[in-house]
Amino acid sequence: MKRYSQLAQTLGQRIEQGLYRPGDRLPSVRTLSEEYGVSISTVQQAYRVLEDSGLVEPRPKSGYFVPERRHIPALPAMTRPAQRPVEISQWDQVLEQVRSAPGGELVQLGRGTPDIASPSLRPMQRAMANAARRTDLRSLGYEGIQGSLPLREQISRLMLDSGCQVPPSELVITTGCQEALAVTLRAICQPGDIVAIDSPSFHGAMQALKAHGLKALEIPTDPANGVSLEALELAMEQWPVKLILLTPNCNNPLGYIMPDARKRALLNLAQCYDVPILEDDVYGELAYCYPRPRSIKSFDTDDRVLLASSFSKTVAPGLRTGWVAPGRYLDRILHFKYIASGTCAPQPQMALAEFVGGGHYEPHIRRMRAQYQRHRDLMSDWVYRYFPEGTRASRPQGGFMLWVELAPEFDSVRLNQLLRSEGVQVAAGNIFSASGKYRNCLRMNYSNRELARIEEAVRKVGAGATALTADLRRLAESEPA
Amino acid sequence: MKRYSQLAQTLGQRIEQGLYRPGDRLPSVRTLSEEYGVSISTVQQAYRVLEDSGLVEPRPKSGYFVPERRHIPALPAMTRPAQRPVEISQWDQVLEQVRSAPGGELVQLGRGTPDIASPSLRPMQRAMANAARRTDLRSLGYEGIQGSLPLREQISRLMLDSGCQVPPSELVITTGCQEALAVTLRAICQPGDIVAIDSPSFHGAMQALKAHGLKALEIPTDPANGVSLEALELAMEQWPVKLILLTPNCNNPLGYIMPDARKRALLNLAQCYDVPILEDDVYGELAYCYPRPRSIKSFDTDDRVLLASSFSKTVAPGLRTGWVAPGRYLDRILHFKYIASGTCAPQPQMALAEFVGGGHYEPHIRRMRAQYQRHRDLMSDWVYRYFPEGTRASRPQGGFMLWVELAPEFDSVRLNQLLRSEGVQVAAGNIFSASGKYRNCLRMNYSNRELARIEEAVRKVGAGATALTADLRRLAESEPA
Ligand SMILES: Cc1ncc(COP(=O)(O)O)c(C=O)c1O
Ligand SMILES: Cc1ncc(COP(=O)(O)O)c(C=O)c1O
Repeated sequence: MKRYSQLAQTLGQRIEQGLYRPGDRLPSVRTLSEEYGVSISTVQQAYRVLEDSGLVEPRPKSGYFVPERRHIPALPAMTRPAQRPVEISQWDQVLEQVRSAPGGELVQLGRGTPDIASPSLRPMQRAMANAARRTDLRSLGYEGIQGSLPLREQISRLMLDSGCQVPPSELVITTGCQEALAVTLRAICQPGDIVAIDSPSFHGAMQALKAHGLKALEIPTDPANGVSLEALELAMEQWPVKLILLTPNCNNPLGYIMPDARKRALLNLAQCYDVPILEDDVYGELAYCYPRPRSIKSFDTDDRVLLASSFSKTVAPGLRTGWVAPGRYLDRILHFKYIASGTCAPQPQMALAEFVGGGHYEPHIRRMRAQYQRHRDLMSDWVYRYFPEGTRASRPQGGFMLWVELAPEFDSVRLNQLLRSEGVQVAAGNIFSASGKYRNCLRMNYSNRELARIEEAVRKVGAGATALTADLRRLAESEPA
Repeated sequence: MKRYSQLAQTLGQRIEQGLYRPGDRLPSVRTLSEEYGVSISTVQQAYRVLEDSGLVEPRPKSGYFVPERRHIPALPAMTRPAQRPVEISQWDQVLEQVRSAPGGELVQLGRGTPDIASPSLRPMQRAMANAARRTDLRSLGYEGIQGSLPLREQISRLMLDSGCQVPPSELVITTGCQEALAVTLRAICQPGDIVAIDSPSFHGAMQALKAHGLKALEIPTDPANGVSLEALELAMEQWPVKLILLTPNCNNPLGYIMPDARKRALLNLAQCYDVPILEDDVYGELAYCYPRPRSIKSFDTDDRVLLASSFSKTVAPGLRTGWVAPGRYLDRILHFKYIASGTCAPQPQMALAEFVGGGHYEPHIRRMRAQYQRHRDLMSDWVYRYFPEGTRASRPQGGFMLWVELAPEFDSVRLNQLLRSEGVQVAAGNIFSASGKYRNCLRMNYSNRELARIEEAVRKVGAGATALTADLRRLAESEPA
């Protein structure tokens, strides 16, 4: 380990153990340099690492401080979706969200876009420009159906970090993770089949269930640990579940990381009932902890886990480049992938292979993780400050979305209507449930580096939520009991 | 009309009327300049136009000549597929074709790639490089679900040439034409439904039928005029056809353009039986005639035609940018498009909008049309020369594929196996039929500008076909009758 990393670790532990308290000034660079017998620049580097992970805060002309403690809203309770298979609704709400193009005046807190303005993405732009200059069949023709081999080699290597050994020959490149999900659902399920899912759950996956005529069996989910295994087992006993669909790492929308023991237990359960698992790992690389958490697939012994992912959250969604590691279902996946959209665009694949292979991906991801962790703390604090008292919020362990729960009678669809004139949009909670539950919840994106703009937007959302809550209370009170 | 165009037209007419005969030397540039009182460069330009459309041929140091007459193989007869709905097979053959990446030593005569090495695509490369340099949400984030508005505006304008007035708000950008087809099939049909298709028919569309659990009702098709309307009517009387799926313009694989009167009659039939039409127009812009042929959709009065297309054949398949004009089915198409792969990659959309909007598309297409027409004549000639006597071939009116029919007992799957060691691959005919008919046929691509390489490849295919035909004959003769 480098000297500055060692020093950063030591200081970081002291802060976390409470040796330095919120608001305390930390030892000066010179003092530490003398105390540890290291150079000034080593100490400065160590402080920069700590700053990046949000543990210290520079104040102009007065040195480094432990940040004031952020206020953290309480976690929501375990969710309680309906315990039976239901057909998916809410398409109209989703459509409203995905219809508009980005880039206007609207602050789209509701969408799942990462920070794509990071300087660490510059090599990616260069790689795209390089790809654009090529005129050969490889860059403008039809790729092979499994996708670019150099890119599959890089993905195979990255997957080692999550404990998975998947050779390039067992990977299929897809048009984003969405296509990976849609293709998998079609390859595994028949119309009418029941799919067990975490709840709340990503709307794109849920709408894919709807499109395939599948029913969702929403499983109660704990905002800190993920899907309830007890509830899942009960459900599997009671219903002929055909597939389990989960996002165990840095879940969208709740942000939890399912502990490894629970991942193993879940896999056991799937084995017992002989059901495949579709694991969505699209945010797994954005865990705030290092090394990144393991995937369920990494524990898989009989190739029953299909892992779907993409570079949409780690690099940029506009590349539309994802993949699936389909385990024993490779042949079926190839067929459904081919009919869905043919082969994938070669240029983004070339550019990604260059970006990852050139060693630019890891530093970018490290930077993003630290940034998103800092932003999470800020966003939590803003929710605490600007939202009605009693508002709860998730405590994401990765990714860049906060889930916010308001009073039971709250209506985030109406909130979005109110917010339209304010130029802000959140994701209404009901699109994350098959049956339209979670209307009293909402999801906000904190990836954006323009913090002042985002704080202002959250303030507006909070003010709107406060006003709406008061309205709803008045209404409830004026109604005859 | 420009002077040189006028002159080119005059000379062209004389050649076509037989005033100059194949092999004749044409008047020198100087003679014509004096005769018509125009400048030397005007005559030179006129000759270049004639050269581009294959009517004259320059010979080094001796001036311009009327090309020797090409040999033209006879047309195949009307096709005779099984007259009942069948489930689609042949996936293994298709997979073999789409598995390999391009760019190796293999000459892939079997794939549907246009000429992407044309200098007229340079502005497109510049546009892609421009898009790659941008770092905003618009270029790297999630587009709106309908796709880029500037691109839809350009497509809407281009569609006027086919007689269609479709506003940008009624277009949906898709991941290539394949996604447009797949999404449409899902939006319109339920598993088990019957779809009437031309026969032979594009394997991607057919495999999409298979993936959706649909049955194909293959309609006898005339290699010069398209699907038999009589047969289609009979089929519709007899079976509950849910959708008609056709490629009426520059058909893949047969290359015909359905005459307008037949397009109208087909639409009438669809109206009578109240069935929607899915019109694949992916080659429509590559018709050798000018102006380009009308689409069936241009005659549509009650929004029952869904037109699917892409820039894959006109610009480059690696862009994976297509569209659907879904008529009355817009809402359903949006849903199925969203779940299939989310929104489409913004950079190719930006670049295409720049390429088309900047006036580079039309000259490129004109150039490609002329090139493909010349290549068609060459390819027909090669087939006549190198294939067994009695081989028939299509007479494409657009696009860049020739359909070749050999003796009934011929086996193009075996031919491909033989050709593997020769580094050549063709598309075996059976992948163009739901039930594996047309095994005695094959399809070859003539887009490529490296003519010597292609001629050599065709020569190898012809030699292989001749040898295999002889083998099969011997075998048949040695068998007891
Ligand atoms: C959990 C989850 N899976 C999949 C996707 C889709 O990813 P992509 O943009 O790569 O299709 C998203 C995007 O929002 C997501 O949140
Ligand atoms: C008739 C036809 N339709 C659709 C397609 C698919 O086009 P795209 O590459 O745009 O998905 C092809 C490509 O071969 C085709 O020949």
